[in-house]
Amino acid sequence: MSADRARLLIDCPDGPGIVAAVSGFLATCGANIVESDQHCTRAVGGHFFMRMTFDVPDLAGRLTALREGFRTEVADRFAMAWRLTPEAHPRRVAILASREPHCLFELLYRAERGEVGGDVVQVLSNHPDHRAAVERLGIPYHHVPATRETKPQAEDALLEHLRGTCDLVVLARYMQILSGDFLTRLGLPVINIHHSFLPAFVGAAPYQQALDRGVKIVGATAHYVTEELDSGPIIEQDVVRIDHRADVAELARLGADVERLVLGRAVRWHLDDRVIVHHGSTVVF
Amino acid sequence: MSADRARLLIDCPDGPGIVAAVSGFLATCGANIVESDQHCTRAVGGHFFMRMTFDVPDLAGRLTALREGFRTEVADRFAMAWRLTPEAHPRRVAILASREPHCLFELLYRAERGEVGGDVVQVLSNHPDHRAAVERLGIPYHHVPATRETKPQAEDALLEHLRGTCDLVVLARYMQILSGDFLTRLGLPVINIHHSFLPAFVGAAPYQQALDRGVKIVGATAHYVTEELDSGPIIEQDVVRIDHRADVAELARLGADVERLVLGRAVRWHLDDRVIVHHGSTVVF
Amino acid sequence: MSADRARLLIDCPDGPGIVAAVSGFLATCGANIVESDQHCTRAVGGHFFMRMTFDVPDLAGRLTALREGFRTEVADRFAMAWRLTPEAHPRRVAILASREPHCLFELLYRAERGEVGGDVVQVLSNHPDHRAAVERLGIPYHHVPATRETKPQAEDALLEHLRGTCDLVVLARYMQILSGDFLTRLGLPVINIHHSFLPAFVGAAPYQQALDRGVKIVGATAHYVTEELDSGPIIEQDVVRIDHRADVAELARLGADVERLVLGRAVRWHLDDRVIVHHGSTVVF
Amino acid sequence: MSADRARLLIDCPDGPGIVAAVSGFLATCGANIVESDQHCTRAVGGHFFMRMTFDVPDLAGRLTALREGFRTEVADRFAMAWRLTPEAHPRRVAILASREPHCLFELLYRAERGEVGGDVVQVLSNHPDHRAAVERLGIPYHHVPATRETKPQAEDALLEHLRGTCDLVVLARYMQILSGDFLTRLGLPVINIHHSFLPAFVGAAPYQQALDRGVKIVGATAHYVTEELDSGPIIEQDVVRIDHRADVAELARLGADVERLVLGRAVRWHLDDRVIVHHGSTVVF
Repeated sequence: MSADRARLLIDCPDGPGIVAAVSGFLATCGANIVESDQHCTRAVGGHFFMRMTFDVPDLAGRLTALREGFRTEVADRFAMAWRLTPEAHPRRVAILASREPHCLFELLYRAERGEVGGDVVQVLSNHPDHRAAVERLGIPYHHVPATRETKPQAEDALLEHLRGTCDLVVLARYMQILSGDFLTRLGLPVINIHHSFLPAFVGAAPYQQALDRGVKIVGATAHYVTEELDSGPIIEQDVVRIDHRADVAELARLGADVERLVLGRAVRWHLDDRVIVHHGSTVVF
Repeated sequence: MSADRARLLIDCPDGPGIVAAVSGFLATCGANIVESDQHCTRAVGGHFFMRMTFDVPDLAGRLTALREGFRTEVADRFAMAWRLTPEAHPRRVAILASREPHCLFELLYRAERGEVGGDVVQVLSNHPDHRAAVERLGIPYHHVPATRETKPQAEDALLEHLRGTCDLVVLARYMQILSGDFLTRLGLPVINIHHSFLPAFVGAAPYQQALDRGVKIVGATAHYVTEELDSGPIIEQDVVRIDHRADVAELARLGADVERLVLGRAVRWHLDDRVIVHHGSTVVF
Repeated sequence: MSADRARLLIDCPDGPGIVAAVSGFLATCGANIVESDQHCTRAVGGHFFMRMTFDVPDLAGRLTALREGFRTEVADRFAMAWRLTPEAHPRRVAILASREPHCLFELLYRAERGEVGGDVVQVLSNHPDHRAAVERLGIPYHHVPATRETKPQAEDALLEHLRGTCDLVVLARYMQILSGDFLTRLGLPVINIHHSFLPAFVGAAPYQQALDRGVKIVGATAHYVTEELDSGPIIEQDVVRIDHRADVAELARLGADVERLVLGRAVRWHLDDRVIVHHGSTVVF
Repeated sequence: MSADRARLLIDCPDGPGIVAAVSGFLATCGANIVESDQHCTRAVGGHFFMRMTFDVPDLAGRLTALREGFRTEVADRFAMAWRLTPEAHPRRVAILASREPHCLFELLYRAERGEVGGDVVQVLSNHPDHRAAVERLGIPYHHVPATRETKPQAEDALLEHLRGTCDLVVLARYMQILSGDFLTRLGLPVINIHHSFLPAFVGAAPYQQALDRGVKIVGATAHYVTEELDSGPIIEQDVVRIDHRADVAELARLGADVERLVLGRAVRWHLDDRVIVHHGSTVVF
């Protein structure tokens, strides 16, 4: 990771001159563009998206001026939604998990290998099961029990732990539904992994649903959490072929491998500032 | 194709001695088992499925006796649903199509290459568009117009063409919904290709639905047609990865390639006697 | 296809200001950038690649001036290799085939559907087999026999047909090896489909080689033809899973479906000006 | 896992009556066949393979008699290579690893989840790096340094640890080449994971080789180790699509996910008695 590398994410109504304005601004700042990707929803009257990474000497010292300059000279002119962040900016992740360990430990494994694009700073669970294994890795583990009756108190307790301590919350097979009120108060992006190829098999027991319908492929979906269950913007999906020999336990086993990879990719892409949400969908650069 | 090769498809309640009885019977007939596959839904109290292919000298001459012997000595004892057919048995396919040509011509191409496991004997369409291209291949083309008002007459006309002339009907992107009454009167298996990964995006315009939901993968599903729309037993599915750059036209283009392969496989497997329907799902050997 | 849409392909040594110069030039021309993709082999001292599509009013009338302006104001300054072509520019394809029909007819089918990005203007073959089926589609068919002894004359005859009449030559399972001398005199890009996952199984009978080695996946590779057999820059590859049940005939059948798709994609990407060759590899935008 | 379930693996020259003899023998023993799969290399004069799982009351008490009966009544008659093992039989795995942790910890993770089909009883490495993380899981870790000069002594030390203590040795990115002499003295199956789609990119640095050749897909291969490097019978392969943006580090990261899954499947299938080696290839039931 380079201390002088920054990432710029932009979206705005399309129009002539956007790329010239952005690249012209960066050129006058002495920046060297390393990666650039852009997308437009249609040739005329569409919406424009761009991700750039660039190197600029003394990024840390000039960050405030860069942002201010970009806003006044470029962003305001094109009514851009944008963010400009140093690659080296800390990205703190909190993981919520329940009994199933595979997604939780996949993320911890990837974080240890430096593959997540951020740091896991805490694990919260409605079960005490994984405390020893998580603490062994030097990561704090908070057991926050949740029942139907105590849900408001449980969400308060989660908020207590999460607010101000992290930039992203990941539900790694966390089996409690979070309320819209909780999401609003949290005010952070939340990524969930659902163990089906959404929109097929929303809700509980998707592998059983898949078996009942007799599908020949099962999948997993990582998406941002919104108030409506399993309906938020999809970041990543993948699938695995099955056949009639697979029972629910085998579907769960095969699916677990897909869940792990899909969630790992989605979290990394989010933390690499590759994802822009637009009208309930995502652009992933 | 060997004149002396037969295929045996069986399903029945599981119990001890089935394989021994079947293979014992075939051994006493002097048959040589070439392929065998079996499946049981669970270890105790399950349902048993088997497909065997075997060679037996003078199959044609002995077929009636073989069937009679198998029924009395094996099938009745285990309450089997079964069928025993010579590999060389003619398998006649009628294709119904509308405007989209890709699935229709994929099947015609495969039939020409001997890859379908049967012969296409006629094409019926609610549009006249493909007459020249189909007749060029030496295959009869019947234009059967269908509107909301003339649907009963159109179904009568289809039945007129289909009854007694074919063993399988394939809907190769045929955009009319067939009535339950039609299916009953037809009395033949009907395979449809739906251009989504069912059960996601049932009904009309699945690629538009996929785009609206923002999925990262689209698929196609070949299934037996039942009275309930897009809900029959699934034979085969496959998928292709997409990204934010794809509009509906591009989804349709990418999806068309998947539809072609999925439908080609499903038709072949059906005609190769590889598919058993059970409780709304399929076992595909 | 829009008459006012152009495609710009660039590659050059990386350095600061390239994107600003290109997009600035296009902005002053009143062009609206529709798509843009770029790549750099590394952050410092790398090689830069870019593909842009843009709309500009009266493209046809201004094409010469645009090219001249781009060369003097941008391209020369950065030592760019580049080409700027109208999307509507005719792209003429000649196909060479032998006995196997599947790749030939896949391309013809795609061309008919407008999915190839160009027009098939002739088919040449060392066998007479496909004349009727090709001519039926209104495409000239030239039978150019080739034996070990007559190879030089056969290549002369091919050149006679190809020179000045096409922009791309596609070997759709053409089973003759073309000499380096032929390639030089032809002076056009040649795309071949090889029926293995290169660099595995170079040369003859790759499906037999795959079976002998016991691989669990077979593939197909589309690549530009160079003098060294099966070693040119790879454009596209794909694979299909197999198992121990597949014999060589089944491998060939499964592989044929992959070959068709891979070759179809490669030809389309080439004709869509998406491919840049660099150091024996390709960048495919 | 059921104490009364057994697995039977058979291969022999094909001929009439094999299935009848095997299933007849099991029926007279009161066994209930749970799964059965078979394969024959060709219809006449081929080689026959079969895997069956069956339940038989008091398996443990009757195992010796079952084996003896099977040998005299069935196996000898058809010149079978065969093994009959209780599902509950202990299967002890030793893992050899070097610096790369991902395959090692994937197997440990799967073993903890009961997904490996056996128990990891020790880890050996030519590096001390993973001692703490492995011992934390309660598994012995032996550091056996190996240099070019000390290779014979190192192999002696490995043999000391391995002989009599395990049933399978897995090379989880172990970067030392084992001598033919070592393999002979070990006398156990050894599974290796190679980080390419074999037979492409044998030997060192396959991801660099893949980048140099410009392939569009990279893969991983799990195979039994033989004296000839990377040439043993392949058990499983899988691939992942890449594009021009991937450098060697990214290839290694993407490939690591494939390696993990491929090795996990291969080890499980071996320990589930699903793999039969024949003429340098495998049948995987």
